[in-house]
Amino acid sequence: MKPITVLGLDPGTARLGFGVLIKAGARFTHIAHGCLETPKEMPQAERLETLHRGLKELLNRYQPELVGVEKLFFAKNAKTALPVAEARGVILLSLQTRGLRILEFTPMQVKQAVTGYGSADKRQVQEMVKVLLKLPEIPQPDDAADALAIAYAAAVAPRY
Amino acid sequence: MKPITVLGLDPGTARLGFGVLIKAGARFTHIAHGCLETPKEMPQAERLETLHRGLKELLNRYQPELVGVEKLFFAKNAKTALPVAEARGVILLSLQTRGLRILEFTPMQVKQAVTGYGSADKRQVQEMVKVLLKLPEIPQPDDAADALAIAYAAAVAPRY
Repeated sequence: MKPITVLGLDPGTARLGFGVLIKAGARFTHIAHGCLETPKEMPQAERLETLHRGLKELLNRYQPELVGVEKLFFAKNAKTALPVAEARGVILLSLQTRGLRILEFTPMQVKQAVTGYGSADKRQVQEMVKVLLKLPEIPQPDDAADALAIAYAAAVAPRY
Repeated sequence: MKPITVLGLDPGTARLGFGVLIKAGARFTHIAHGCLETPKEMPQAERLETLHRGLKELLNRYQPELVGVEKLFFAKNAKTALPVAEARGVILLSLQTRGLRILEFTPMQVKQAVTGYGSADKRQVQEMVKVLLKLPEIPQPDDAADALAIAYAAAVAPRY
């Protein structure tokens, strides 16, 4: 089976987590992880443009064939959720414009895919990411670890 | 005072309302209004791409110098608000990329600007839009009338 490059994205305006891995059959290789960040004092439209440019660079550098994106499916705190949804809109547009295959996952689906248990806590998910990708330690920061978990969920999703 | 072209946008995924007017000193001239629509059964990423393309055409056609965009400042219904926020993200990105001046307004600020009364009802706002822009009748559909109200709010905002 041809190896595929999978990108995982954890949307946010202040911080967009990303994780890249390669799946070859049942083998997973960690490639990269990190965060795109934008300063708090920057107007939202400029932050979105900054994220859009940063994401374009990531897509050019890693050339993923499949992208997993975390879904916001309800908002406990609308004041926080709305700017995240705006960032998600920009992300979905960037991916769609390049014709990439997009899979979306709720946080529960990511936990289920990584640990086999939809109510796993954050720490358990991060430990499993470390084990599954044979990393020496838990990836930092949290948003990057989450993004790797999302990439893993996309890589093991039924169609792949 | 040099006339300026002002675009108003009422964000939505299913329907993005737009309104265009020209302000010359204290005179306002209605230019156009309408909606960009996307089909319900289309995946969200494709809908966002469709809106992005449609908005680009509007910007090319009318060449606005100032754009008013309605702000979502809290979400009564998160399930509805999140896709609207995603569309807003795409709109803000498009405007920012072109270096346009963006002004954002809450629904209450739009009502205040158009009727002088922040708690005016929808119908009062629409009647005032008709009067202010000397239209033969209330513009249809509602989202387009709202977008004209937003354009008016932007046109009379302190900086202009």
